[in-house]
Amino acid sequence: MDEAVTALTTEECWEMLEQEEFGRIAFRLVDEVHITPINYAVDGRSLLFRSAEGEKLLAIVMGSEVAFEVDHYNDDFARSVVVRGAARLLPEDEAHRAENVPLRPWVAEEKYNVVELQPRVVSGRAFHLSRPWLHLRPHD
Amino acid sequence: MDEAVTALTTEECWEMLEQEEFGRIAFRLVDEVHITPINYAVDGRSLLFRSAEGEKLLAIVMGSEVAFEVDHYNDDFARSVVVRGAARLLPEDEAHRAENVPLRPWVAEEKYNVVELQPRVVSGRAFHLSRPWLHLRPHD
Repeated sequence: MDEAVTALTTEECWEMLEQEEFGRIAFRLVDEVHITPINYAVDGRSLLFRSAEGEKLLAIVMGSEVAFEVDHYNDDFARSVVVRGAARLLPEDEAHRAENVPLRPWVAEEKYNVVELQPRVVSGRAFHLSRPWLHLRPHD
Repeated sequence: MDEAVTALTTEECWEMLEQEEFGRIAFRLVDEVHITPINYAVDGRSLLFRSAEGEKLLAIVMGSEVAFEVDHYNDDFARSVVVRGAARLLPEDEAHRAENVPLRPWVAEEKYNVVELQPRVVSGRAFHLSRPWLHLRPHD
């Protein structure tokens, strides 16, 4: 059953990261693990986020490593890419990088901070789904 | 612009948790934060997962608190629910609980461990999306 889960190549991971625009970021705050949805854009070989002042920014300023995930699935397969690495708040003279990529806030809030995730580990998996019951459930 | 993001009620959070079957779990392994996609089911007011022997199980056995997220979005809005709490490996005489809920592995792998997440915090947000550029991008 080993074929049920296969590893994506690094190139496939970046292709998927470039296709998506919405993921989830996980980070530590002291002893707690937090996770929150976020939109993002790929800039070269790093990821850019806009961050509001709040928990996410606090964790980044504290210098912790973060984990970021995107996924996509349909009836037959699922794909997930995970990026782990250090996040840093871009200083003012670098924040313009966010203007050159499709990093637009989904929500009409003012978010001034640009955060860069520099990947240390990029990994992805493809799952061949086996969900015979899918057709047994009424869709609502 | 405050209406762009609204909090879900606890009841709305549980409704969404019951509708979905796929989320992402974040956990600590020593100093590292990890995130991985996982399928799950609601059993009463807790969440059940099947876990393979591996990183996820290791973190749970180590007693760390985990964070779990589900989300759903379309062109106009997004919703996300986050559950944080302690995860524990169910002992053999409780593992049958997984048989009474729609907790079926998507992938045809043998996964014998059943893990329960007992929520300490359940929170959710609805985002009214503002993506005027959506119609400007060609869909592939």
